[in-house]
Amino acid sequence: MLPFARVTVIGLGLLGSSIAHAVRAHMPTVRVTGHDADPEVRDVAVRIGLCDDIADTPGASVIDADFVVFCVPVGAMGAAAAAIADDLPADAIVSDVGSCKESVAEALTAALPGVTVIPAHPVAGTERSGPEAGFATLFHNRWCIVTPPEGAPALAVERVSEFWRQLGAQVETMTPNHHDRVLAVTSHLPHLIAYTIVGTASDLEEVTASEVIKYSAGGFRDFTRIAASDPTMWRDVFLANREAVLDMLQRFSEDLTALQRAIRWGKGDELFDLFTKTRAIRRSVIEQGQDDSREDFGRSHD
Amino acid sequence: MLPFARVTVIGLGLLGSSIAHAVRAHMPTVRVTGHDADPEVRDVAVRIGLCDDIADTPGASVIDADFVVFCVPVGAMGAAAAAIADDLPADAIVSDVGSCKESVAEALTAALPGVTVIPAHPVAGTERSGPEAGFATLFHNRWCIVTPPEGAPALAVERVSEFWRQLGAQVETMTPNHHDRVLAVTSHLPHLIAYTIVGTASDLEEVTASEVIKYSAGGFRDFTRIAASDPTMWRDVFLANREAVLDMLQRFSEDLTALQRAIRWGKGDELFDLFTKTRAIRRSVIEQGQDDSREDFGRSHD
Repeated sequence: MLPFARVTVIGLGLLGSSIAHAVRAHMPTVRVTGHDADPEVRDVAVRIGLCDDIADTPGASVIDADFVVFCVPVGAMGAAAAAIADDLPADAIVSDVGSCKESVAEALTAALPGVTVIPAHPVAGTERSGPEAGFATLFHNRWCIVTPPEGAPALAVERVSEFWRQLGAQVETMTPNHHDRVLAVTSHLPHLIAYTIVGTASDLEEVTASEVIKYSAGGFRDFTRIAASDPTMWRDVFLANREAVLDMLQRFSEDLTALQRAIRWGKGDELFDLFTKTRAIRRSVIEQGQDDSREDFGRSHD
Repeated sequence: MLPFARVTVIGLGLLGSSIAHAVRAHMPTVRVTGHDADPEVRDVAVRIGLCDDIADTPGASVIDADFVVFCVPVGAMGAAAAAIADDLPADAIVSDVGSCKESVAEALTAALPGVTVIPAHPVAGTERSGPEAGFATLFHNRWCIVTPPEGAPALAVERVSEFWRQLGAQVETMTPNHHDRVLAVTSHLPHLIAYTIVGTASDLEEVTASEVIKYSAGGFRDFTRIAASDPTMWRDVFLANREAVLDMLQRFSEDLTALQRAIRWGKGDELFDLFTKTRAIRRSVIEQGQDDSREDFGRSHD
């Protein structure tokens, strides 16, 4: 039983193009229409046959849609929604894949008064961007968090949830505010830290950038992957989820100061205890299928 | 032309067992003797046939060695070296694989007066530990940094370098002090940050540890890999390379504070500029063969 028959994806980057691939793989009878504000991205999408149809304008892309998913940076959601307001069919459901939910829910509902908006966030991605970065299995065994507004119609929530389940994801619902707190720690803070350390390393005087790159296999290279994520997307996330990010950052800084002190005063036991605790968390991540169980993420060693 | 004929590996964890596998794969005529202070580890090594011989005492393991490599935590190097001092053949060369070089060079030369000590550090590893974690290709296309003491015999330096080249590594030499500064940023600081953030995430009240694990695919899981590394090894590294680590940490904290301020005041351009710069560094890491070029480290998505 298909939740939707005519899906429109607006924004054809990593997430948008992955949705297009995944719908084709998992719901081959569903018609997928795509649109991207960038004409070059639309050309690529046409060339690689990403969707059944690529529309040149936002309005044209939604004209007969029963489901519209916005896959644009969170700061661009409001304007993207406003651009379809006049052409959206009255019974269409609108959703998105943004990494913050409070600000996006506000922006979408403000731009689309009277429309059923059910925001969602598939917790999945890679460091690649653009219409050629997507692939059909990106959402397999990943969680998609659906954040229905108060009073949202249960059937609409269920149709959006079923859409994600059919793409291979597991679905959880929570409030936008709790989502933003959870993601601040599991996604936003890690990205912020990774961007910072890669920046710090590239700004040293005595250790050259070429040395940093050459010896990155000691751990640094893991951070460079995350710090290669899309700059616009992440700028918007930090601005949109500012409060939760700053709060998590404050806690992180306190913990880092405590560790700094333990190193300065040679408190080996404190270090050992923390390092033992964190090891157990890795085990849980693997056990719950949230990472590759192969060592080194399954990196090739040859 | 083999650099050594009888190699002894002391400490049969990830690095030690990888050396044993790699010597067998690349220099099959070289005899490898192993020793580990832990009798259970020695039993495993015997059971899996890791070495030609597993000696029950440090002294017995080096009795006819021409090359001895210490693969123990850096804080244990001095004691491990003292334990072989009486039995080491006069012309044997001693080396190690420790992640800090100044403190290790001091400890080894103090424990082994008159012995030719050529410390080295293969910049390679995974999050696994123990005698069953090793594999023959761990050092392929990785860098091994050799840090010869002043006045070290050139032939000894060359033999140690050749040993690593034959295991598949590329070799660079530098002073112990410079090594310790470089690794503080490319390895020690990343580990410290990863341990901290995983600890912070597991200590929140409102976001449960189970939520942190469940939604870890948003970025957090990358950090858990590093934070699963051996606790004893890393405790020793931070204590042994304290000054360089604290210095790098100070720089990191300043940069993090600047970013925090940019978020608080909504300075999107500053964020965007940093995120664009860090992306270029990822490209260089890939171009120089220091990470898997496949997206997401080549993680399985199915």
